Amino acid sequence: MSKDEIIILDCILSPFCMRVKIALNEKGVSYESKEEDLFGWKGGKSELLLKSNPIHKKVPVLLHNGNPLNESSNIVTYIDETWPSSSPLLPSSPYERARARFWIDYIDKKVFETGGKIWRSNGDEQEAAKKEFIEILKQLEEALGDNDFFGGERFGIVDVIAIPFSCWFYAFEKVGGFKVEEHCPKLSNWEKRCLLKESVGSVIPSPDMVYGFVSSMRNKLGLE
Amino acid sequence: MSKDEIIILDCILSPFCMRVKIALNEKGVSYESKEEDLFGWKGGKSELLLKSNPIHKKVPVLLHNGNPLNESSNIVTYIDETWPSSSPLLPSSPYERARARFWIDYIDKKVFETGGKIWRSNGDEQEAAKKEFIEILKQLEEALGDNDFFGGERFGIVDVIAIPFSCWFYAFEKVGGFKVEEHCPKLSNWEKRCLLKESVGSVIPSPDMVYGFVSSMRNKLGLE
Repeated sequence: MSKDEIIILDCILSPFCMRVKIALNEKGVSYESKEEDLFGWKGGKSELLLKSNPIHKKVPVLLHNGNPLNESSNIVTYIDETWPSSSPLLPSSPYERARARFWIDYIDKKVFETGGKIWRSNGDEQEAAKKEFIEILKQLEEALGDNDFFGGERFGIVDVIAIPFSCWFYAFEKVGGFKVEEHCPKLSNWEKRCLLKESVGSVIPSPDMVYGFVSSMRNKLGLE
Repeated sequence: MSKDEIIILDCILSPFCMRVKIALNEKGVSYESKEEDLFGWKGGKSELLLKSNPIHKKVPVLLHNGNPLNESSNIVTYIDETWPSSSPLLPSSPYERARARFWIDYIDKKVFETGGKIWRSNGDEQEAAKKEFIEILKQLEEALGDNDFFGGERFGIVDVIAIPFSCWFYAFEKVGGFKVEEHCPKLSNWEKRCLLKESVGSVIPSPDMVYGFVSSMRNKLGLE
């Protein structure tokens, strides 16, 4: 569809990178992915990454005809504003847009950090993190209500922002000994609904792959 | 200008609340401010606040014809989208908008929290916070460059987001024993330029008032 040059500085397991790929898929915009070596296994982060995101030095970076964009929620909004005609992601009314941004901010601040506390700990600390994580998901489930998607009947920006975390849930569950589905059945159904979409399913890695990564990190940290 | 009912659940010393008032002033939209009792001196937060921001329970809340909006950067964006015709705050191109959102996010994550570390500590901890704070301001000064405002020639959304912190700088300086102006002269000039604007100057409390508050809090915390 697009003749623009679109490059993502990417990491296959990063939910933040997945957001950008899902948004571009929704828009029908093709892109080239360049996998970054975040853990220094093959020489470390590329010069292009350090130059394109000098403040945070993090993936994802979107390079649109060479112009760098940083921070995944910001990039997804940019994608929606740059290709507005197909599959709008943000709602059209200012009030609904503000509501969507509120939940994006909530998800950005809470979900991955709290999930990380589950797998980076054991014992009481892990129990507390698990409890906090379930509360956060319940809050999200309440926001979802009886809708098919956070965007209502349509898959929208909050769905793009939230769904990539789902492939990490299995690792959180295995390490923490709980099931998201038992606490948040509606959210689990939403997850299945999203994964059926080609734009999402083609981007999200298998939960087993994430669990493999989490296990190896826990081993390294002496937690297993 | 507007016949809408606009209420801010407010706190005079909160930079986050100041953002909302400056944005409304820029748009020529009049509002009613309801001061919240955040510290429990007169019975605590209002029922209206708890109902209007059930997740974070924080000011500011903007009530637009009764519809609540939370989180200051989000509210300022909403104000810009709701009254787009006068004094646009966000740039018009998607790329420049993304750049503005990047700096809003940076300011939101860094400035007030690091400033808080200066006045909530002493000794080495305070020194480290001071050093970090100055680095953050230098980064902002670099982003400002030789422009009059972060919005370029015009006062824009990043200016709205950043300027309220300036009335806290005097307290940080007094407690930490440093001068922002000596490290970031361009940023100090930007501050003076912003404060000359009626929309800003009428909202920002005196640095002495903020310092008085910070001193009393330091006393309470046993730091002075």
